Amino acid sequence: MERKFILVVGAGRSSSSLISYLLAQAATYNWTVTVGDVSLEAAQRRVGKSPYGKAVQFNMDDHERSRNLIEASDVVISMMPAHLHPRVAEICLAEKRHLLTASYVSDEMKAFDSQAKANDLLFLNECGLDPGFDHMSAMLLIDRIKSKGGMLTSFESFTGGLIAPETDPENPWRYKFTWNPRNIVIAGQGTAKFLQEGNFEFIPYQQLFLRTTPVSVPGFGEYEGYANRDSLKYLETYGLKGIRTMLRGTLRNKGFCKTWNVLVQLGCCEDTYQMEGVANMTHAGFMDSFLDGRSSASSPEEKVMNLFNLSKGDDVMTKLRWSSLFSDEKIGLLTGTPAQILEHILNKRWNLAPGDKDFIVMWHRFVYEIGNTSKEIQAHLTVVGEDEVNTAMAKTVGLPLAISAKLLLEGKIKTRGVVIPVQRDIYIPVLEELSEHGITLIDREID
Amino acid sequence: MERKFILVVGAGRSSSSLISYLLAQAATYNWTVTVGDVSLEAAQRRVGKSPYGKAVQFNMDDHERSRNLIEASDVVISMMPAHLHPRVAEICLAEKRHLLTASYVSDEMKAFDSQAKANDLLFLNECGLDPGFDHMSAMLLIDRIKSKGGMLTSFESFTGGLIAPETDPENPWRYKFTWNPRNIVIAGQGTAKFLQEGNFEFIPYQQLFLRTTPVSVPGFGEYEGYANRDSLKYLETYGLKGIRTMLRGTLRNKGFCKTWNVLVQLGCCEDTYQMEGVANMTHAGFMDSFLDGRSSASSPEEKVMNLFNLSKGDDVMTKLRWSSLFSDEKIGLLTGTPAQILEHILNKRWNLAPGDKDFIVMWHRFVYEIGNTSKEIQAHLTVVGEDEVNTAMAKTVGLPLAISAKLLLEGKIKTRGVVIPVQRDIYIPVLEELSEHGITLIDREID
Repeated sequence: MERKFILVVGAGRSSSSLISYLLAQAATYNWTVTVGDVSLEAAQRRVGKSPYGKAVQFNMDDHERSRNLIEASDVVISMMPAHLHPRVAEICLAEKRHLLTASYVSDEMKAFDSQAKANDLLFLNECGLDPGFDHMSAMLLIDRIKSKGGMLTSFESFTGGLIAPETDPENPWRYKFTWNPRNIVIAGQGTAKFLQEGNFEFIPYQQLFLRTTPVSVPGFGEYEGYANRDSLKYLETYGLKGIRTMLRGTLRNKGFCKTWNVLVQLGCCEDTYQMEGVANMTHAGFMDSFLDGRSSASSPEEKVMNLFNLSKGDDVMTKLRWSSLFSDEKIGLLTGTPAQILEHILNKRWNLAPGDKDFIVMWHRFVYEIGNTSKEIQAHLTVVGEDEVNTAMAKTVGLPLAISAKLLLEGKIKTRGVVIPVQRDIYIPVLEELSEHGITLIDREID
Repeated sequence: MERKFILVVGAGRSSSSLISYLLAQAATYNWTVTVGDVSLEAAQRRVGKSPYGKAVQFNMDDHERSRNLIEASDVVISMMPAHLHPRVAEICLAEKRHLLTASYVSDEMKAFDSQAKANDLLFLNECGLDPGFDHMSAMLLIDRIKSKGGMLTSFESFTGGLIAPETDPENPWRYKFTWNPRNIVIAGQGTAKFLQEGNFEFIPYQQLFLRTTPVSVPGFGEYEGYANRDSLKYLETYGLKGIRTMLRGTLRNKGFCKTWNVLVQLGCCEDTYQMEGVANMTHAGFMDSFLDGRSSASSPEEKVMNLFNLSKGDDVMTKLRWSSLFSDEKIGLLTGTPAQILEHILNKRWNLAPGDKDFIVMWHRFVYEIGNTSKEIQAHLTVVGEDEVNTAMAKTVGLPLAISAKLLLEGKIKTRGVVIPVQRDIYIPVLEELSEHGITLIDREID
């Protein structure tokens, strides 16, 4: 078997399972796995002592070195921040190398489609958990419904990266950072677009965390979802033209959104300007910057209670206090935007501690018509992490990418161009192998 | 007297008084006034039959023609949309021509400072009403306070372009479009930054219209102001370092902000995406796009009442109904962003009708310490428009620019570089002549 070279760029917290899988299979498939990161140490940590792996420094700003590393590989898997993907794609195109990412297809990425096709290259994106497994598992059920002659009238899908019930039981948010904290703090900025009962609906950031959807997962509990970006663009990709409801969203534990909304309304998640006097600022001082100085209230805590009409014992106040947002602790940054400062404060308690287990919940609802009757299928996936490094998030984001890379190198994926995993030649074998790793959607007909 | 050539680019609604003034003085000062606009007809309308004026087509995309017209002038006054100013400035710099605008100094504009100075050019910006007259009148009083030995501790300033009490008495908003409607619809997006009682405060868009300041103008009535962009950047420009409160804002009639806040919260002012199905959309359908389709309410009007906890007779609902936002009337656009559609709907009733008079209100409050006592000065300016063309807005925006151009051509303004009118050699003579045109600030000590 000819030796193949895989380059993984980005060795952050979501890369652990991806790299472990590739190294574990390297002997069988005759692979060499090169892991690059701006931090050589981070890359080394992921490679460990594996004889099949190699850690290198990888910095997009060093174009020549990036080009050489990409040229030396058969396929590139990028786990770097999404805004860097088009630059990776450009080099991949020039060097005729395949590219896999777990990120949303940007307009810049989309623009590579015809060139990628012309060069017989696969630029597979949105191939992680959400986006990724959600697409694949939804397509499987959509295809099943269609093959029975059913006509889909509604599709709703929510996914969340939470913490396991036994982890951090005193944490009232039931949440910790299990992927890029920055993306969590700025999540939802822009307008969510979706289709509901035949009408286009638009939710701006300022309403997003107020307009949630209740989600009940049998055997696990009650959650709530908020709408995610542009659901409309998947109408065509999923082949769902004519459907009346189409909504993709993010899942949180019940009560999360009401508290997060307070931070959104105050402007704590803004990322467009640098705050003043950060070096000497306390957590409470940070909050106070967003509260009316003319108020008669004696503290930021009281101001928040007055502004949002909350009692001291309200669940929202409990969560904010637990995150020490009203404490006199120094922030510990010299400069920062509100979003950067909020991320830093939240991370003091939302950082996964040794032994913490994260918890992935995905939920789909399909409504379809067959003959003259309306039917409903609900489906869910739950995955519990092993520990604070081998998280369910890293596993569910990384394995779809790793398996896709393997299938591609084996010549089993024929699709080319800038795509997402909604083609059968991708999702059928990927879902099959994911199932062997305990990542399986459970579906049931609802009466 | 040597003939001088003035080029005014942009012949929109705010240009009328500016151009009338220049044409009226042209004989005395031996000027030729060229008026350029993308619409030749608009330029011709402004020039009328004046023998001193010339109307031309002016389109920034025709670079060669723009360059020729700028080269043929001694000073350029740009009334075009602010984003075009840096392109005008670039040509002015190449052709060594002075430039005057009424717009905020952008970072791009600021970057021309040293080159403008090196070429002995004045790039005067923020020289209209607000920004403009507010800077000049504030500096006059700040200088007076300082010259008496007073130390300023607080400066607040609000300006609004409203409608005269006798105009459109049944209009519950007490407001119509008197300058660029687009800027009014998207006003406040971003974060307002100011200083209050020694603390930096930040108000995001979603809180802006909820955190208003009451303003009372003797003899005129009760108003409310919302914070305007970045007040902090004027700390240095005004020479106010060490001041404890610094707030610039926009003035509206009482009750305006609470209603506008409904449109902001719903996302009707977003300008980042195209809506779907605009061609067949009604006003009510537009509103419904932002409201929860799962609601049991029977109409968008009822949904708004439920969401914001308002009764049918509430003043907010009266205003929204008056603007026909819940009507079944077709919008009359084929495509548009929410902001573009909202502007179009509002303009149906907010367009100035023949005989309508607009009304400018500016209000400053200065608190200062002298010896051991704290003193306060309040000052206000009010200007009523003549009719729907010769508006108070056009007069108060245009005359400061026109007078500045005259002083510059007479050699009476020596300041060079990218500046705003906070220098005595500009604001003293400009304020003096404005006073002759009935534009005078009235100030009084408050006990």
